Amino acid sequence: MINQETIVALATPSGAGAIAVIRLSGEDAIVFAENQFKTVSGKLLSKQATHTIHLGHIIDGNKTIDEVLVSVFKNPNSYTGENVVEISCHGSNYIQQEIIQLFLRNGCRMATAGEFTLRAFLNGKLDLSQAEAVADLISSENEASHQIAMQQMRGGFSSEIAKLREELLNFASLIELELDFAEEDVEFADRTQFKILVERITFVLKRLIDSFAVGNVIKNGIPVAIVGETNVGKSTLLNVLLNEDRAIVSEIAGTTRDTIEDEISIGGIGFRFIDTAGIRETKDVIESIGIKKTFEKIEQSQVVIYLFDCERSISNLDSVNIEIGKIKNKYPQKSLLVIANKIDVLDDIQLAKLNTEIDNVLLLSAKTGFGVEQLTNSLLSLINTGALRNNETIITNSRHYDALLKAFEEIQKVNQGLDSGLSGDLLAIDIRQALYHFGEITGEITNDDLLGNIFANFCIGK
Amino acid sequence: MINQETIVALATPSGAGAIAVIRLSGEDAIVFAENQFKTVSGKLLSKQATHTIHLGHIIDGNKTIDEVLVSVFKNPNSYTGENVVEISCHGSNYIQQEIIQLFLRNGCRMATAGEFTLRAFLNGKLDLSQAEAVADLISSENEASHQIAMQQMRGGFSSEIAKLREELLNFASLIELELDFAEEDVEFADRTQFKILVERITFVLKRLIDSFAVGNVIKNGIPVAIVGETNVGKSTLLNVLLNEDRAIVSEIAGTTRDTIEDEISIGGIGFRFIDTAGIRETKDVIESIGIKKTFEKIEQSQVVIYLFDCERSISNLDSVNIEIGKIKNKYPQKSLLVIANKIDVLDDIQLAKLNTEIDNVLLLSAKTGFGVEQLTNSLLSLINTGALRNNETIITNSRHYDALLKAFEEIQKVNQGLDSGLSGDLLAIDIRQALYHFGEITGEITNDDLLGNIFANFCIGK
Repeated sequence: MINQETIVALATPSGAGAIAVIRLSGEDAIVFAENQFKTVSGKLLSKQATHTIHLGHIIDGNKTIDEVLVSVFKNPNSYTGENVVEISCHGSNYIQQEIIQLFLRNGCRMATAGEFTLRAFLNGKLDLSQAEAVADLISSENEASHQIAMQQMRGGFSSEIAKLREELLNFASLIELELDFAEEDVEFADRTQFKILVERITFVLKRLIDSFAVGNVIKNGIPVAIVGETNVGKSTLLNVLLNEDRAIVSEIAGTTRDTIEDEISIGGIGFRFIDTAGIRETKDVIESIGIKKTFEKIEQSQVVIYLFDCERSISNLDSVNIEIGKIKNKYPQKSLLVIANKIDVLDDIQLAKLNTEIDNVLLLSAKTGFGVEQLTNSLLSLINTGALRNNETIITNSRHYDALLKAFEEIQKVNQGLDSGLSGDLLAIDIRQALYHFGEITGEITNDDLLGNIFANFCIGK
Repeated sequence: MINQETIVALATPSGAGAIAVIRLSGEDAIVFAENQFKTVSGKLLSKQATHTIHLGHIIDGNKTIDEVLVSVFKNPNSYTGENVVEISCHGSNYIQQEIIQLFLRNGCRMATAGEFTLRAFLNGKLDLSQAEAVADLISSENEASHQIAMQQMRGGFSSEIAKLREELLNFASLIELELDFAEEDVEFADRTQFKILVERITFVLKRLIDSFAVGNVIKNGIPVAIVGETNVGKSTLLNVLLNEDRAIVSEIAGTTRDTIEDEISIGGIGFRFIDTAGIRETKDVIESIGIKKTFEKIEQSQVVIYLFDCERSISNLDSVNIEIGKIKNKYPQKSLLVIANKIDVLDDIQLAKLNTEIDNVLLLSAKTGFGVEQLTNSLLSLINTGALRNNETIITNSRHYDALLKAFEEIQKVNQGLDSGLSGDLLAIDIRQALYHFGEITGEITNDDLLGNIFANFCIGK
């Protein structure tokens, strides 16, 4: 199945930086590297111990491409399980390309997306759900999704599945053993114990399946539509939320944020804020198109924030209530947060009026920071993060979700079969089916198409 | 002078990738890393040999941030000459930031721009011109600028300067020795030999100074203004030139090129193409603003390409000649290439007419590729690349250029002094001045302001 060609790719992000890392993997990776690399010490790369680093020059004929550090990892003690070489070069685009092209000309092949991790899987360094977690880990942008991916990569999820699978397999073997002695009517598999196991598996599967609701949201970010006219303070609000969580990050990475439609991490969970126009009654054709779009965006979101400007609206709170009513009527299922911004400009009488006339209004001054903490708490309370806090396994991958649902179906059949005294041969079929779906998750059961789909989503170089 | 705080920074380009490398340097770098890193083997990082790699986890309290590889480099065998640790983590932005912040919270400090290389210089791992070459190497985008930076980083330029400096220093010492025996009227320094040396130094300095003309152009790219109306094939022409040189690069890096104002490497040398409008006679105000801008762009460029469409212009070649004449009159010093595009649509009679009526016209079909090779050869012939081909030292840095000019001035004074039989004490002053300027280049003579200016242009992490 596995092709032992030596593959090469840039492992670090593209662009110029202080250094870049180019990775080679395959039976001959060290030999290929040795052919183009002259150590300063004069030693041969292939004679060096695994996990050692060597200073030298990448040479193309009589041209020196760069002074580099070369790291050697010997089969099986490497990421892929093959011989691996990592070349740490100066991070210019030109050098990166020259080195990669040099190896391509001399017998290496460009790695396909995720091929290093695919090889790690095929060589037994990772199971399939761990391999998938590598991609999740790289794309995780906040604490929650990082924590879930990390747990999955370290085998938390796999070992939970593997344990269930093994216990189920034991019973399956016993039941299939009974079939060999069918004429003697023996029962090697204790039906009472088996019933307990099946119920336990049902319970665990149900919990895992349920966790996908929160897991999926954590992985993809929680979409929040902000409904509000221009100049009610949408950008200011987002910047305040952003600063609560990301001030240091921004400083280091030099991130700037121009658009309001962006993901902000609050309490470690990603929220994707979607800017919309207001929803005022209007006869203007163009404006009514805007209102239609607002409703479309609310449709796609899980949480709706209705933001209004106190100063502008205090004398006409009825119209605010009309708009809130519209959203509530149209989307009774969506979580709605009503926020009055710029409360710093109100006097006490106006504040009292606001609190009386608008139900459950969140008072905010994006300018002074008043109310921001209450807002973040409100946002977080909308997400059931119990499983996250308790460090339970959370499913984020729809492929796992599908396999778990199918396994759950089969286990239910087994359970019903046990209740109705189904014969061992028929029970065995349903158990095998459940085992099959468990195997799909960890990759004991797999095929080229499935692997192709999974690793196509990786970046090249991973 | 050097602050022995441990510094930390991301060394790879920012953004998500398969892996990212975070670098620590300082007396306590290994200890700092050890405090946050648990090896899989259970071994202590500080007990490990230099140039070894260790698998383990970055730990923040009871939270695992990532599974990483940690490389250990021990003082003085590292880039900076200090203890250095490189952490190769999964390349998510979140993980990169978490790890950097973890070290910042635990006593490291964010590295300033170029601080790793500054420390390498201060610790004697590189001289100043070599340190400057590191930044040039990272920003080099084509073969020629890469080759020059590489040569400079490997000390080619420094050793040439150091050799001259040493010989000059020898004579200076002898002359100063004479001063101690002033009353005895001895001559330790042979004036004839000294005259030969000074002439050799003059020759070398002159060559280095002259090389700056080509070096500067190679480093910054040669600005080429393309003058031509819309739809004469400017984009097509650039794409053809681009494909000649960069097809494979594009494939690997997934580069796309939307704008015509971009640098293209031809024969290893960077050309910056600048799009302009045409320069037709017009009474339209807006159009005449465009013409003014065209002339401004020609002003900034070194080469002008006048591109016209044969099909459109064959019946009115006089107007083409008028426009060419305008450019020649206004900019007699600029190199001008006149290119007739779309010659594939002409018949033999029209071709003959074209050749007769337009002087030195380059025939091109961007569509079929005809004439492209002649065009690239013409472009390259405009640059004096002799020094490059002969692997001579080329100056690209204006700071070096200034220092060399000053040294040259002083050496000329010395030469004149020798001719006029100037006394040893006065000769010695001029020699010391020349030595001072040599020292500025390699960094034997330096100050904080100078270092600050140089390293401010580096990226953080280098």
